Amino acid sequence: MNDYVKNLIEGLKSGAVSEEEAEVMIRKAPFVDMGFAKVDMHRAVRQGTPEVIYGAGKTPEQIRSIVDAMMTRGQEHILITRIDEERAAALEDLPDFRYYPQGKIGVMGGMPEPDGLGTVLIVTAGTSDIPVAEEAAVTAEALGNRVERAYDCGVAGLHRTLSHMDQIMKASVIIAIAGMEGALASVIGGLSDCPVIAVPTSVGYGASFEGLTALLAMMNSCASGVTVVNIDNGFGAAYSASMINHMKAK
Amino acid sequence: MNDYVKNLIEGLKSGAVSEEEAEVMIRKAPFVDMGFAKVDMHRAVRQGTPEVIYGAGKTPEQIRSIVDAMMTRGQEHILITRIDEERAAALEDLPDFRYYPQGKIGVMGGMPEPDGLGTVLIVTAGTSDIPVAEEAAVTAEALGNRVERAYDCGVAGLHRTLSHMDQIMKASVIIAIAGMEGALASVIGGLSDCPVIAVPTSVGYGASFEGLTALLAMMNSCASGVTVVNIDNGFGAAYSASMINHMKAK
Amino acid sequence: MNDYVKNLIEGLKSGAVSEEEAEVMIRKAPFVDMGFAKVDMHRAVRQGTPEVIYGAGKTPEQIRSIVDAMMTRGQEHILITRIDEERAAALEDLPDFRYYPQGKIGVMGGMPEPDGLGTVLIVTAGTSDIPVAEEAAVTAEALGNRVERAYDCGVAGLHRTLSHMDQIMKASVIIAIAGMEGALASVIGGLSDCPVIAVPTSVGYGASFEGLTALLAMMNSCASGVTVVNIDNGFGAAYSASMINHMKAK
Amino acid sequence: MNDYVKNLIEGLKSGAVSEEEAEVMIRKAPFVDMGFAKVDMHRAVRQGTPEVIYGAGKTPEQIRSIVDAMMTRGQEHILITRIDEERAAALEDLPDFRYYPQGKIGVMGGMPEPDGLGTVLIVTAGTSDIPVAEEAAVTAEALGNRVERAYDCGVAGLHRTLSHMDQIMKASVIIAIAGMEGALASVIGGLSDCPVIAVPTSVGYGASFEGLTALLAMMNSCASGVTVVNIDNGFGAAYSASMINHMKAK
Amino acid sequence: MNDYVKNLIEGLKSGAVSEEEAEVMIRKAPFVDMGFAKVDMHRAVRQGTPEVIYGAGKTPEQIRSIVDAMMTRGQEHILITRIDEERAAALEDLPDFRYYPQGKIGVMGGMPEPDGLGTVLIVTAGTSDIPVAEEAAVTAEALGNRVERAYDCGVAGLHRTLSHMDQIMKASVIIAIAGMEGALASVIGGLSDCPVIAVPTSVGYGASFEGLTALLAMMNSCASGVTVVNIDNGFGAAYSASMINHMKAK
Amino acid sequence: MNDYVKNLIEGLKSGAVSEEEAEVMIRKAPFVDMGFAKVDMHRAVRQGTPEVIYGAGKTPEQIRSIVDAMMTRGQEHILITRIDEERAAALEDLPDFRYYPQGKIGVMGGMPEPDGLGTVLIVTAGTSDIPVAEEAAVTAEALGNRVERAYDCGVAGLHRTLSHMDQIMKASVIIAIAGMEGALASVIGGLSDCPVIAVPTSVGYGASFEGLTALLAMMNSCASGVTVVNIDNGFGAAYSASMINHMKAK
Amino acid sequence: MNDYVKNLIEGLKSGAVSEEEAEVMIRKAPFVDMGFAKVDMHRAVRQGTPEVIYGAGKTPEQIRSIVDAMMTRGQEHILITRIDEERAAALEDLPDFRYYPQGKIGVMGGMPEPDGLGTVLIVTAGTSDIPVAEEAAVTAEALGNRVERAYDCGVAGLHRTLSHMDQIMKASVIIAIAGMEGALASVIGGLSDCPVIAVPTSVGYGASFEGLTALLAMMNSCASGVTVVNIDNGFGAAYSASMINHMKAK
Amino acid sequence: MNDYVKNLIEGLKSGAVSEEEAEVMIRKAPFVDMGFAKVDMHRAVRQGTPEVIYGAGKTPEQIRSIVDAMMTRGQEHILITRIDEERAAALEDLPDFRYYPQGKIGVMGGMPEPDGLGTVLIVTAGTSDIPVAEEAAVTAEALGNRVERAYDCGVAGLHRTLSHMDQIMKASVIIAIAGMEGALASVIGGLSDCPVIAVPTSVGYGASFEGLTALLAMMNSCASGVTVVNIDNGFGAAYSASMINHMKAK
Repeated sequence: MNDYVKNLIEGLKSGAVSEEEAEVMIRKAPFVDMGFAKVDMHRAVRQGTPEVIYGAGKTPEQIRSIVDAMMTRGQEHILITRIDEERAAALEDLPDFRYYPQGKIGVMGGMPEPDGLGTVLIVTAGTSDIPVAEEAAVTAEALGNRVERAYDCGVAGLHRTLSHMDQIMKASVIIAIAGMEGALASVIGGLSDCPVIAVPTSVGYGASFEGLTALLAMMNSCASGVTVVNIDNGFGAAYSASMINHMKAK
Repeated sequence: MNDYVKNLIEGLKSGAVSEEEAEVMIRKAPFVDMGFAKVDMHRAVRQGTPEVIYGAGKTPEQIRSIVDAMMTRGQEHILITRIDEERAAALEDLPDFRYYPQGKIGVMGGMPEPDGLGTVLIVTAGTSDIPVAEEAAVTAEALGNRVERAYDCGVAGLHRTLSHMDQIMKASVIIAIAGMEGALASVIGGLSDCPVIAVPTSVGYGASFEGLTALLAMMNSCASGVTVVNIDNGFGAAYSASMINHMKAK
Repeated sequence: MNDYVKNLIEGLKSGAVSEEEAEVMIRKAPFVDMGFAKVDMHRAVRQGTPEVIYGAGKTPEQIRSIVDAMMTRGQEHILITRIDEERAAALEDLPDFRYYPQGKIGVMGGMPEPDGLGTVLIVTAGTSDIPVAEEAAVTAEALGNRVERAYDCGVAGLHRTLSHMDQIMKASVIIAIAGMEGALASVIGGLSDCPVIAVPTSVGYGASFEGLTALLAMMNSCASGVTVVNIDNGFGAAYSASMINHMKAK
Repeated sequence: MNDYVKNLIEGLKSGAVSEEEAEVMIRKAPFVDMGFAKVDMHRAVRQGTPEVIYGAGKTPEQIRSIVDAMMTRGQEHILITRIDEERAAALEDLPDFRYYPQGKIGVMGGMPEPDGLGTVLIVTAGTSDIPVAEEAAVTAEALGNRVERAYDCGVAGLHRTLSHMDQIMKASVIIAIAGMEGALASVIGGLSDCPVIAVPTSVGYGASFEGLTALLAMMNSCASGVTVVNIDNGFGAAYSASMINHMKAK
Repeated sequence: MNDYVKNLIEGLKSGAVSEEEAEVMIRKAPFVDMGFAKVDMHRAVRQGTPEVIYGAGKTPEQIRSIVDAMMTRGQEHILITRIDEERAAALEDLPDFRYYPQGKIGVMGGMPEPDGLGTVLIVTAGTSDIPVAEEAAVTAEALGNRVERAYDCGVAGLHRTLSHMDQIMKASVIIAIAGMEGALASVIGGLSDCPVIAVPTSVGYGASFEGLTALLAMMNSCASGVTVVNIDNGFGAAYSASMINHMKAK
Repeated sequence: MNDYVKNLIEGLKSGAVSEEEAEVMIRKAPFVDMGFAKVDMHRAVRQGTPEVIYGAGKTPEQIRSIVDAMMTRGQEHILITRIDEERAAALEDLPDFRYYPQGKIGVMGGMPEPDGLGTVLIVTAGTSDIPVAEEAAVTAEALGNRVERAYDCGVAGLHRTLSHMDQIMKASVIIAIAGMEGALASVIGGLSDCPVIAVPTSVGYGASFEGLTALLAMMNSCASGVTVVNIDNGFGAAYSASMINHMKAK
Repeated sequence: MNDYVKNLIEGLKSGAVSEEEAEVMIRKAPFVDMGFAKVDMHRAVRQGTPEVIYGAGKTPEQIRSIVDAMMTRGQEHILITRIDEERAAALEDLPDFRYYPQGKIGVMGGMPEPDGLGTVLIVTAGTSDIPVAEEAAVTAEALGNRVERAYDCGVAGLHRTLSHMDQIMKASVIIAIAGMEGALASVIGGLSDCPVIAVPTSVGYGASFEGLTALLAMMNSCASGVTVVNIDNGFGAAYSASMINHMKAK
Repeated sequence: MNDYVKNLIEGLKSGAVSEEEAEVMIRKAPFVDMGFAKVDMHRAVRQGTPEVIYGAGKTPEQIRSIVDAMMTRGQEHILITRIDEERAAALEDLPDFRYYPQGKIGVMGGMPEPDGLGTVLIVTAGTSDIPVAEEAAVTAEALGNRVERAYDCGVAGLHRTLSHMDQIMKASVIIAIAGMEGALASVIGGLSDCPVIAVPTSVGYGASFEGLTALLAMMNSCASGVTVVNIDNGFGAAYSASMINHMKAK
């Protein structure tokens, strides 16, 4: 119970706070930072969930100080996205820290045991999409999911896609990652029987317009069950996939 | 067992098909229609799932003939989206048919009992977003979900959004529907602890560019757990939400 | 004091609500509708401020029922924007109702006395911009501002702009309305010494792209003191202008 | 030999035209209409090739007068694209005229015998793409090609695409027609071994942007052998396909 | 009185200038630089207002020479925007010069006492928006405003926004700064009772399109009282905010 | 001499206006409407120049009242652009009025004798561009230019373009009008030796984007001497062409 | 015969695989990688066809390992596109390897004898388009085509285009390469009697938008027989051209 | 008389060329390079006109070799645009060569005497536009025009624009150069009585989109007599301006 709430309740009971003052304090409560942050409530439900630091544009010092603050309040699992090798090196002494260079992502506190409903399958159209895929894969693993990878499955060589049919049919959630024309999302969406999260990538040249074409194409997917996240947003896709893979009756 | 496969197996055993011919037949098998359609496999798992007819641009006669074909093969539950009142009237005599004018959607075969993990909450920013919301709501109900509606919750009157906090926290999946600047998706995404599917709508004028602004804004949502579908695609959002609300261990 | 707060306080004091329950109730308080709506607080400060109904896409019946609800809770001044003559006719019997056909706007409860710091000057580039200007003008008047109009002052005939120099120099706030290339905003911004709110309009053809060109041009205005609202948003410009024209020490 | 050339040659030989005058006449020759139009040279090679009238925006009278001019100079085969039923009715008395309402195209002079290298296969993603497909099909037939149609083969139901594998492998040229995300082009391009001409269509809604998304996606096709024509340009695709299907050693 | 005007008046009175010549001179007057610059008139009203140098693309030498010219005519307060640390170092010897590295802005002549109606509150969605915010903050301070900062208040963590409710309700003008989906503007606009100037920033990636998405979203804000300036234009927002915060009866 | 100037001069001489007052009056002079409008000065130079009314969106009554005002101050030649046949009929009784239906333009006061340096050649790519061409042609004639027309000269049939080589080489100014890919501007620009004004038209479909493609293509013309006006702006092209065709030593 | 198929056939015949198991295995066959890749089937038809490695973004090591894999399975002809000189140097020891620096393309296994129907003519508008042209030229040669080059033929100097008329009329396929306004495609399309593949290039500045303008213009070409590939995609154009140039009766 | 024509004429007269062969040769004549290049014809009319080399992307060696070729055929005046200082240094030994660093343009052969109708006035909105302006200024001078410069005349300080009124009214052609919102073109167009060529520049940030906003705004100029060239195309504007300034009766 935080101080504000404590003072209010005790004051009311002791008479130190009048009814009128109490009303004002209650009305102001939403505007005081009571620490009812979403992450906290979430953590009450499932232990071991990491907090996330978006590393882009932050110096090692800034990242370090955020990590310190999190550790101080007891957080042992931290995910740091979008950091390059150099900045990751400066974090090497963190407890149980490991850097995944392909996905440019660091994990502190080790990987949890998978506790989801099933497997998160990560499919890419080409090899150039792998950095985005690895950001997704490491994120999903850090959030407690069993992950399978099926890379370079572009639909222009349909047999490459179909050769992963078993995985596609067994997955609980699929993350479909593609640049250029983004057709992978529709084909996977049509083959699978589970939610598909499509990630357009900035891979390509010319009229790929740094992912805009893939984004628009995925938006227009004629396959049901496909939703889309921002260009190159492997983290976001994995976060949603993990939520879906941890669904339970409410 | 379909004829092609039957002929192959029997021919091989009887010698009427040589090994070489068999190889060719097996290689061609994927390109023959063996009826392994996704919908069929899906239906094996959960009875009562409707098939869907996208009604836009179809005449009542065309819709009727598709319905007839579906009924012939035993389908009792059919969802017909994007039909106006006039075309719906021509379908009134279908068994257990009901037309929902706000969502411009018709359901044949009655609504199933909800059998999902929890509730699908449908939130809109304004009253003009209701047609898209009702397309989503009726679709979700027809797919076996308990649905709650929270309309006109735009973030410019934040108390309107927050007054639905109980529903937001209890939902299994949320569909957030908004035109104009689409900020609802980020606010709901930040308040909730479950997957959020954002639907941009073509509501607005000027620089809303018929939903493009809302689409781009939702794509950029800074809240984790938000994915996006096409402009005005209430059906697609509900289809994905239903998949998520019916997740089970695999 | 609303019931939720009352129950909380009395329950705490009587012991009917435990400290633990009280904490939960206080945490939930922001998410309960406590009626702290912006409009209400606003009205506490300045009597006579109208509530606004955005009429686009609403039937006369829908508008009427919103009006009734507002009247029930004592609101005497109502602004109804974006209604055509036909729908306005259906509201003629409202108390003290007047329809302004150029701005497609209706006012119930009569116009208040101007009580702002000075004059809101509304300038348009051409005669085709007048509907947007009149939406702004009537809105500003209904919000308690003295309004001056200077129409057809396009910068291609600079003498037309300059002939309003006196008004420009005396205005408290200027609303500059223009389609096509939107240059009026920069010229007015350079000549004036007060806040300028620029409204791009969808007037024009070809590469005006229904106001996008004017919007982008106004965004890039090289004159300091210029801010921009949505295409054709005369109401929004007037609302902001009125806020500025009613500034007082805080 | 036209008059200008005849006069030049004869004048030179008779001395009526001096060398200096001849030089001037030769220099000016390209700028005189000598009737060396592409269509004419083309016709020298293959008899029976029709001339084409783009009917959009032309009155029946205008079309009739162009037809008359063509008939006067001996043209018996004429293709009239983009005419609706009403205007087509006004042309019914033309010799051997037939109107194809799905493709909104009329053919005068009957269909020629196919004389191409093989078959032009026309594939569409959905049923809404059929009007564009029929414009292509009738054009290709009128230009002397055997045409096969495979409609409603969208990749979200991959078995529908694959069930046409025989046709895909046997075709000489494929025209792949799709709106929305346009993924059909990549899948067909990957499955086939012949030139594929992709036609984006304006079918779809929301972020399909009237064909722009399909156009960009097709441009980015990761399958080799795919080229693209304008949105809804069934005629242009068929014209190119026919050229390709009539290739011969040069 | 400048020479041109002096000569005109004296010449007329002495007869050295005829009536006809006088008319010509008067007509030509607007086209002679009489030094009636806006800034000068402005300065007559409020002493201490700085002149502004837009530093982008200027060498230290160019900036120095503009500063010298301004100092020569008595200007003691100068604001230099968009200069990096290196160029700022070259200006260190200016009287009472201070460089603010976060906002990349330098101030010569010290900060004035705040003399506005109230406080300018500067709110950002994230920490990456701080450079734009500091450009705004230092500008507002240099223009005589009391400034409060509330950074990292993004709406995905609504409690972070709401925890600044006191500041939001007490502010005279709010500058809301956000990249990505720009939802902050609508939320702040809905919570506050004062003019809100929204600044889209180029923060983000993928479909943020370097601020375009935030710009369009802010344009479409459903909250009244919100106007928008150019992407990253912290200076412009502060300039307008200062104008508003210095409003007085006219 | 207008009253303002007269009062100033006489007041100064009589002493009724002090030197200080005079200075203020002179400073304000540019901001008083002294009637130095461009059109008027222009008319001083060349008699018979018409004034122009942009008819789009104006009722016959509005046009009539503008015409009356112009006639009252002696204007005999008036050009009314963008009026349809119906509105033109309502103006039939104007003196010497003629309506040109193809260009949707009306001329009052008859056509002047051509007095330019040479010929304005108007070239179109197709027959659908003719309405824009006729707006240009009639405008140019009304402004005193000899006009030649070369319609349907699209570069896909290059001989059609080249057959007008004589006209192209003899023209003083060329207006090149084309929709779709707008290639005509570059070809004409390369063939001619005079200024070329390119007019993109909204003719086309699909990726022509209502003239945007032609506009951008013309902007990028690799031929020197080509400048561009707005989509479908035949009037603007002719106005500029007429200025160029009436150049004289200054 | 691969193992999967072999096991199926032999198992069925021996009784080790039941009919039910056989059906399942046949149904799964398409989803097992049977090596029916397009390239392989293609190679059955024409010996010597190279496989292609898209080199962009690959390290020399990655390229080397793909090459090794290809060589292992007997491929002697390999095309490596989009590699710079430095990476090419690391491949110099490959058998019969040659690097073409202008097109940034390497060929292993030597050039085949041309065996197409005729000549592939590659035309560029300017000299800056040559890198794209050389990517196309070397690709076409490596795929067995006789290639002619006609560079710097921009239509603004039409005589430059026309001076290649002989080549244009004799070509079997033409690749027309241009940036800026892309008019070359229409002019070549109008002059030639064979399929034209247009390649927009990112050459230009300002409103060329890195090839978008050329792409859109080429899409709108008014000449029949023109199809388009992605910006700067010389390889894709050549691949399609080679397919067309190797057409035979099917 | 060139060889082709000579052979044709002599052959015809001598009988070495048959009538049939002659017809073919005459028909092909337009497609043979007869050297009727535009520049050459132009030069016949006015001596001293320079040829132009577009230097962007060319090495000093390439430029040198083009210069040599031009000098060989007697050209003494050459303009080299878009070369940086370094490449210019390598050309210093050319006869009478001078490099203008602001406009990044070099002139060989000295500047001609101005021989146009009047003055070309070059106006810029800001100082950042000067590089484009100097490209225009040096080009215009090299083409034989008297040039006046009026820089930093942006319309946000209208007195700065108006202070150049004398120059504006006396100019024969005006080149108006501006980035950001491009309003200068409309204001100048409204003030002047001569052709105005507008040049959008890529100056600005945020929603200036590297000149696109200025381009669109200038396209929509409400002032008659304004035409537009590509972003940053100072050369093109000057070339057109020079053509206009050298108009004569034809």
